[in-house]
Amino acid sequence: MIKELPEIFDLIIVGAGHAGCEAAHAASKLGLATLVLTNNIDRIGHLSCNPAIGGLAKGHMVKEIDALGGIMGLWADESGIQFRRLNTRKGPAVQATRAQMDRSRYLFSAQSTLFSLDHLYIMEAFAEDLLVTSGRIRGVRTAFGEDFYAPAVLLTTGTFLQGQIHVGLRSSSGGRLGDPASAGLSHSLRKLGLDLGRLKTGTVPRLLKESIDFSVMQEQHGDDPPPRFSFRGAPRTLRQIPCHITYTSSSTHECINAGLDRSPMYQGLIHGTGARYCPSIEDKVARFPEKERHQIFVEPEGLDSHEVYPNGISTSLPLDVQKKMLQTIPGLEKAIIVRPGYAIEYDYIHPTQLTPHLETRAVQGLYSAGQINGTSGYEEAAAQGLWAALNIYARSHGTDFILKRDQAYMAVLVDDLITRGTSEPYRMFTSRAEYRLLLREDNADERLTPLGRELGLVDDAYWKIFTARQQQMQSLKEALRSMVIRPDQSTVKILEQIGAHPPKRSASLADILKQPSISIRELKPLWSGLDDYEDAILERVQTDIKFEGYISRQREMAERIRHLEDTGLPRDLDYTRVSGLSREAVEKLSAIRPETLGQAGRISGITPATLSALQIYLKMGKKDPQQDKDH
Amino acid sequence: MIKELPEIFDLIIVGAGHAGCEAAHAASKLGLATLVLTNNIDRIGHLSCNPAIGGLAKGHMVKEIDALGGIMGLWADESGIQFRRLNTRKGPAVQATRAQMDRSRYLFSAQSTLFSLDHLYIMEAFAEDLLVTSGRIRGVRTAFGEDFYAPAVLLTTGTFLQGQIHVGLRSSSGGRLGDPASAGLSHSLRKLGLDLGRLKTGTVPRLLKESIDFSVMQEQHGDDPPPRFSFRGAPRTLRQIPCHITYTSSSTHECINAGLDRSPMYQGLIHGTGARYCPSIEDKVARFPEKERHQIFVEPEGLDSHEVYPNGISTSLPLDVQKKMLQTIPGLEKAIIVRPGYAIEYDYIHPTQLTPHLETRAVQGLYSAGQINGTSGYEEAAAQGLWAALNIYARSHGTDFILKRDQAYMAVLVDDLITRGTSEPYRMFTSRAEYRLLLREDNADERLTPLGRELGLVDDAYWKIFTARQQQMQSLKEALRSMVIRPDQSTVKILEQIGAHPPKRSASLADILKQPSISIRELKPLWSGLDDYEDAILERVQTDIKFEGYISRQREMAERIRHLEDTGLPRDLDYTRVSGLSREAVEKLSAIRPETLGQAGRISGITPATLSALQIYLKMGKKDPQQDKDH
Ligand SMILES: Cc1cc2nc3c(=O)[nH]c(=O)nc-3n(C[C@H](O)[C@H](O)[C@H](O)COP(=O)(O)OP(=O)(O)OC[C@H]3O[C@@H](n4cnc5c(N)ncnc54)[C@H](O)[C@@H]3O)c2cc1C
Ligand SMILES: Cc1cc2nc3c(=O)[nH]c(=O)nc-3n(C[C@H](O)[C@H](O)[C@H](O)COP(=O)(O)OP(=O)(O)OC[C@H]3O[C@@H](n4cnc5c(N)ncnc54)[C@H](O)[C@@H]3O)c2cc1C
Repeated sequence: MIKELPEIFDLIIVGAGHAGCEAAHAASKLGLATLVLTNNIDRIGHLSCNPAIGGLAKGHMVKEIDALGGIMGLWADESGIQFRRLNTRKGPAVQATRAQMDRSRYLFSAQSTLFSLDHLYIMEAFAEDLLVTSGRIRGVRTAFGEDFYAPAVLLTTGTFLQGQIHVGLRSSSGGRLGDPASAGLSHSLRKLGLDLGRLKTGTVPRLLKESIDFSVMQEQHGDDPPPRFSFRGAPRTLRQIPCHITYTSSSTHECINAGLDRSPMYQGLIHGTGARYCPSIEDKVARFPEKERHQIFVEPEGLDSHEVYPNGISTSLPLDVQKKMLQTIPGLEKAIIVRPGYAIEYDYIHPTQLTPHLETRAVQGLYSAGQINGTSGYEEAAAQGLWAALNIYARSHGTDFILKRDQAYMAVLVDDLITRGTSEPYRMFTSRAEYRLLLREDNADERLTPLGRELGLVDDAYWKIFTARQQQMQSLKEALRSMVIRPDQSTVKILEQIGAHPPKRSASLADILKQPSISIRELKPLWSGLDDYEDAILERVQTDIKFEGYISRQREMAERIRHLEDTGLPRDLDYTRVSGLSREAVEKLSAIRPETLGQAGRISGITPATLSALQIYLKMGKKDPQQDKDH
Repeated sequence: MIKELPEIFDLIIVGAGHAGCEAAHAASKLGLATLVLTNNIDRIGHLSCNPAIGGLAKGHMVKEIDALGGIMGLWADESGIQFRRLNTRKGPAVQATRAQMDRSRYLFSAQSTLFSLDHLYIMEAFAEDLLVTSGRIRGVRTAFGEDFYAPAVLLTTGTFLQGQIHVGLRSSSGGRLGDPASAGLSHSLRKLGLDLGRLKTGTVPRLLKESIDFSVMQEQHGDDPPPRFSFRGAPRTLRQIPCHITYTSSSTHECINAGLDRSPMYQGLIHGTGARYCPSIEDKVARFPEKERHQIFVEPEGLDSHEVYPNGISTSLPLDVQKKMLQTIPGLEKAIIVRPGYAIEYDYIHPTQLTPHLETRAVQGLYSAGQINGTSGYEEAAAQGLWAALNIYARSHGTDFILKRDQAYMAVLVDDLITRGTSEPYRMFTSRAEYRLLLREDNADERLTPLGRELGLVDDAYWKIFTARQQQMQSLKEALRSMVIRPDQSTVKILEQIGAHPPKRSASLADILKQPSISIRELKPLWSGLDDYEDAILERVQTDIKFEGYISRQREMAERIRHLEDTGLPRDLDYTRVSGLSREAVEKLSAIRPETLGQAGRISGITPATLSALQIYLKMGKKDPQQDKDH
């Protein structure tokens, strides 16, 4: 089949980082004629920082993306060279998957998938201006003066807008090291009335593998078998290789302190705000002077790569300080810096200017996702990319795609961004979710795959896997609940052997499983039928049973305030007319324009009293239709 | 073994295109502690334009590089997806190997080779300034303010110096599409007294494979078995795939003419000079209005790539014209442009400022190679890179590496550049060589491998292959000369069957082979011993025998003027003191400072009379040592 270029696209995506790639995949899979404009095709899907995907809260989002039919999890599974499940000894809410990527393999996966999608068109160009008529997006103009048209445009420009790279007191323009910055777009966004801020992020120096003495470091292997991201059944893994661990020392800290007079951060050269939770090594040393050492994970960048990533020493100190600092770290004494650590400053859109669809309120049809919205991280970017694409698709069918905070981390992410904004790079944590036990990695499919199916992003093959697994879970749960153990001599003996308290009277296997010290696999002597279930199902069901009480309590909590989430606030509500609101409340509500009472309640400074006032106003409004017409 | 960074390098190479890569390989193989500074490690070895290596005169240089122990031929052999031998029906001097590359495979070959070399260090940084004390290079300063030291610095910055990219009337800064330009270096070169010019080159739009109708085009397959570049024995080939051929039409030409009012070339926006012999499609149409169509080779960019390269329609017309033009070309009517065609302007060093070692006369120890010297083409770049590296190495041992024009195309290249300069991108042609029959592809090893061995770049394994082949050739030649055919009934019959004139009296097989219509393989019925020799040897010996007369005549010609090449001119010769020179001659000789009488003779405008005057002066100088002391 010969691919033809449409005159007008359904969607134009600017950028092909992690937000752009995920959005492009989803939109084109759903049949939207989608154009991706990116300034260097060879860098599509490039992992700018550590080539690692997942981790706490981030792994959760990768699984959510996968559950909806997104692509990041599959690419990560194809490209992983070390997979681990974190926190396996802790509660199920904070267990997460993390994998080290082969950087060039990930790039290959991304590029080959995208280029083979039917409705996707990829072109190399800098987007330079936005075409807007009467507050509606019309398209994009490139730096070569070419215009492309679409009723929806999604900006995913990452760290590129007016990017400025800092190493010591030297700085130069760049979108990230090796790539040119994007100049024009910031200007056009401002012209359209959007308020841009400035953020900063940083990365570590990349070291030559052959210059490192791994023999003095601790080795850390991945899990065997490797846990995977995708629920769809995993491809064959690449060869798995270890990471290494070392530490800074007090001499490292001395070096760093001695170099602070040439730190662009400490000398005020960087105006963008960095993330507190993801500090540079100079920040860590300055903020925790009592700490004697900081851990460094020396991570591979790929199977064929000669570079390693010393995770933990992000820095923008001058290169001579970077070198001296390395000389004080066991195993890195002779490390050769292949690429310098650096910080980058860039423009971002204050995300309170966005609707829950990630559309800018200033320009209809103009969406943004990823680092441009003030976040940091591949997974945060991909989640937003998918979210925006699904909304653009849904809205072209007269509906929308908005999840609630008890349904997904990505809902927490979007709600936090648009409701509270952010003045430093926003990163997802499990602590940001109120309903952590509901939003586990292992049940992401249960939460989201039916929605993905409804939208059309989950294909038949995936749906079959999903429903089969659900049935298995169901049958296992039923079996555990119906298998009753009588505390006779033989069962008591078994129970004691596995360390369980024998029940007073008959009890189901499910009841016994609720005992904290018992794991589902230990029940096998009581019921060999457990052998028929794969590990993932066993663990999944175990969590449901063991945490039944907590889970249903969180569900109730969520239900209790669900009515607030369901009570919409008119987009054009004139808050000055709502009696009983403080001036601060009026200002904030008018600026952020929450879509629901629930969202309004999460705006900082909005009190329960304000919510009551709003509720009363809404009720009155319904009684008095005349009043509504005034708007 | 842990790799350690030297305090002072032996050599710093700026850039890792084709000149930089070849130089880096050779220098580090020879044991020079070599630092490569490049602004994006992921782009090391990137083929900026058509991913094809070799062709007329270019294939010759690739084989010369290989014969000396260089690397380009091996990388090309590893990455080729279509190999062909051009001009097989023409004379041996103009037969050449050409191969289409898998672009990303070539990148991989280059990067993995370089990263595994013992004495090579690679760092990502823009070189921004040169460190010079009293006319001697000391090192390089990067954009991050880091200084690196070495007694020799080789600049191989390609199209990056003040690079400016043009598409229609739009232009923007860039080193090539997707890469930032290099700003600082031009300034420091000028400060050091070097005279920079401005050149221009262009490339075609890259098209989406899936948008092309190949069914209406002619298919062109590579040769089977694929001819290879390296004399070292070839690696397994990648899967081989075809190219396709189509043509422009008169409507294409109308389109182009209609767009000339927005051509940056025709509207005077581009000040750099382009290559006449490698014109854009708009140039071809404007310069040859009578031509009804121009051929286009639609070439693959790689096995997994979705892009194709429509070789023949390099253009910097605006994108709308590029699109319209494609619509008129059979098979490309719906072609989707993935990356635009564009022109790039950049600074270059007028190469007459260089010595035959490719050292700048302005700064001792500062060398340049590749596109920065005014050439165009990967092979031209690689040849210079190798040449410069070999000279830097040789000079650190008190000698030098200078070939004569009858020894190698690369000598023709360097001599042309430094003697005549160039005001448009210089590309190698067979017609630039006076001794074409001596400088064949097939005898590159014979010409150069002994020299490469002497230098130390040809390893034992290669040397063994070489000497074995030489012995085979020798024995075959001797056999052909000594096997004598008597024109008896049976041999006459065979001779007639193969279309040869039976000789009057006894003749050797070699004599019979000299008959124009006879090929060596046809002699097999006369001597089955030929079966013992591989094709390459047969052809090689056939050429030597068939063209014996021509070859020895060229050799004599070269010998006859060899004395001119061997007569050195003092570097500090004061030409105003040579009597009998015109003012023009004095100016030119003082500017170019030829190293030999031979080189002086090739300076445009230098007449035989001038040479005689110089010869007389030199002879007198030898007689009168007093006069020499004055200098
Ligand atoms: C120095 C540095 C440090 C980082 N540190 C961390 C960290 O510590 N932790 C962490 O989780 N994450 C970190 N990251 C962030 C991580 O790389 C990003 O969060 C993630 O890549 C964001 O994805 P994105 O899709 O929003 O943008 P990106 O991945 O940056 O992709 C942006 C895309 O847009 C394209 N583009 C930009 N402008 C234009 C334009 N005008 N026209 C066309 N195309 C355009 C670019 O070429 C690119 O394809 C860091 C990134 C950098 C550069
Ligand atoms: C648009 C275009 C069209 C072309 N058309 C043709 C053609 O028609 N025919 C043909 O034969 N050839 C063509 N080529 C040319 C071919 O690409 C070059 O001749 C060849 O690549 C030159 O090799 P090089 O090593 O000199 O430079 P390049 O391959 O350009 O490599 C330059 C290297 O230097 C690095 N660099 C530059 N400045 C700095 C700095 N300050 N610090 C650190 N690193 C630096 C770059 O990153 C790069 O690695 C074209 C190239 C371009 C860009």
